Amino acid sequence: MGKNNVGDEVQNKQVILRDYITGYPREDDLYISTSKIKLEVPQGSNAVLVKNLYLSCDPTMQFRMRKAEYRLSGYYYYVPGSPINGFGVAKVLDSGHPSFSAGDLVWGTTFWEEYSLIQNPEKLYKIQHTDVPLSYYTGILGMPGITAYAGIFEVGCVKKGECVFISAASGAVGQLTGQFAKLLGCYVVGSAGSQEKVDLLKNKLGFDDAFNYKEEVDLDAALKRYFPEGIDFYFEQVGGKMLDAVLLNMKDHGRIAICGMISQYNLPHPEALENLLHIAFKRLTVKGFSQRDHYHLYPKLLETVLPYIREHKLVYVEDIVEGLENGPAALVGLFSGRNFGKQLVKVASE
Amino acid sequence: MGKNNVGDEVQNKQVILRDYITGYPREDDLYISTSKIKLEVPQGSNAVLVKNLYLSCDPTMQFRMRKAEYRLSGYYYYVPGSPINGFGVAKVLDSGHPSFSAGDLVWGTTFWEEYSLIQNPEKLYKIQHTDVPLSYYTGILGMPGITAYAGIFEVGCVKKGECVFISAASGAVGQLTGQFAKLLGCYVVGSAGSQEKVDLLKNKLGFDDAFNYKEEVDLDAALKRYFPEGIDFYFEQVGGKMLDAVLLNMKDHGRIAICGMISQYNLPHPEALENLLHIAFKRLTVKGFSQRDHYHLYPKLLETVLPYIREHKLVYVEDIVEGLENGPAALVGLFSGRNFGKQLVKVASE
Repeated sequence: MGKNNVGDEVQNKQVILRDYITGYPREDDLYISTSKIKLEVPQGSNAVLVKNLYLSCDPTMQFRMRKAEYRLSGYYYYVPGSPINGFGVAKVLDSGHPSFSAGDLVWGTTFWEEYSLIQNPEKLYKIQHTDVPLSYYTGILGMPGITAYAGIFEVGCVKKGECVFISAASGAVGQLTGQFAKLLGCYVVGSAGSQEKVDLLKNKLGFDDAFNYKEEVDLDAALKRYFPEGIDFYFEQVGGKMLDAVLLNMKDHGRIAICGMISQYNLPHPEALENLLHIAFKRLTVKGFSQRDHYHLYPKLLETVLPYIREHKLVYVEDIVEGLENGPAALVGLFSGRNFGKQLVKVASE
Repeated sequence: MGKNNVGDEVQNKQVILRDYITGYPREDDLYISTSKIKLEVPQGSNAVLVKNLYLSCDPTMQFRMRKAEYRLSGYYYYVPGSPINGFGVAKVLDSGHPSFSAGDLVWGTTFWEEYSLIQNPEKLYKIQHTDVPLSYYTGILGMPGITAYAGIFEVGCVKKGECVFISAASGAVGQLTGQFAKLLGCYVVGSAGSQEKVDLLKNKLGFDDAFNYKEEVDLDAALKRYFPEGIDFYFEQVGGKMLDAVLLNMKDHGRIAICGMISQYNLPHPEALENLLHIAFKRLTVKGFSQRDHYHLYPKLLETVLPYIREHKLVYVEDIVEGLENGPAALVGLFSGRNFGKQLVKVASE
């Protein structure tokens, strides 16, 4: 713990929500503030007090910033004037909970601040494997890992030899779904929003092919170029015109797993789809899913990916900004695709 | 066989496609013509020669009338100048096929004419149970029966106690899905396009409730009235605004089975849906399906429904027009919802 000792009162830099928003979050919807915190769990509490090391930038965080009239059921909402929260990696400094001790490394829901008192540590996972980068517990070994694993293995039931298309393919989840499908022996093509990301997919992540959707005037034609015989499985993260073009290019009995539709979240009206009829005509199965329902897969995820990570058979590309004060820009950048790989914020070293 | 004897040459009234169409079929896209036919299977052929008794009017028949640029894969197309075909009930007059003999009653694909020479009788089903109306083999005991049975029991896996919504609920398939769900012990509400149909659903078909979608200014509000806690299973046949409203009212993890979207088939551009995001947020499963993939269920369908029909625990409402010459109007009427129950044409008595 170095300079911080249990019981010390220290400065605590925080990222605060200014007010509820409509539309995309902007950097100034958040601001940095400094309060004080005592590095100690109150007597009789079963909270834990942690030092935050890495914080994850996730698209769903914007939902939690929304004005009441734009809200979705099933989400809790941030409180203006208080620090936002999200997934992160942290070190326990003091614990009132029998499952955690000072010195433990954990991942799970924490706050965007240097130190956090976490009242419900049941939602934290103790980190057992530290021979891999700790930051991976915001990505391949955390929530995005569970999403990708569930999407490919449980929701999609992807099988060897299938033709797989992945949108937002260089992102936190997409890069993993593509590599999982490749490990299964599939033909895998991804779409992304820049030439640099396309190169990453083809040269570093082992995709069979990739294209920049921003440079395609006709997404249907692009998909026909890469999938002349059609798509067996589509891992959907963007929605809108991409989904509409994919529906035209699915094989009969194809499957689509939807974990998000980032292109549609903040449009005044979502884009109109013309090709939904193909769900019926092609007898497609379209499944929405969330990692929230798949945490039981976490041990399987670790068992599967840890050896691959150690043997360098799985690559995980991270876009790490240093310093909590750079967190708001990093988070906001997600919605214009500014990130290159998994976006996260390094708050402190262990 | 009465007046017709094998070997006779007789007049054969037919319903002929004038030319390929765009948009909804109109009555004058079809015309009546009379040719001659010899009531005999040619030597060495394994065709069967049948007298058509009932012909089924099915929404998908319009696809087969379409101009090339509006076609869907997986359908064969009618030939202008030739009689259209579809499902029907017929009596075998002569057979070159070992599975059929003169006098057999069959259902399956036949032509819209008085007598048909069927070159591939493998697609005909021999009718074994004749203590129920023969016309039922175009409906509850035929293709719509398989669709409804597959939709509720196999695709939807509907369970006792679930909240089930059915659109186009008084139609050939809808009336069955609703009754199947009631037999399973579900709460079932249907939508239809007239007060008369709503009364039918509530008073004769045993639906818990029903509403006329044409009289609802706000479909979302209507669904909230009938499903204050949300919908577990939606049997989708119409698409468009109804589907969009349903997406807002599904429970988390709800299921939607889609066998058609009749409201959308002929729009220049299908209606825009705003609520597809809810597939992801609510982790819905949306499955397109077709009876084509479920013929293996036919024995189970018969086993299930025949006793209920005999005990009057299942009702099947038919809208029968008499005479082949009234077939075009009956078929075209489907697309404006003119039919009251399963639409079919009686061509002849046995």
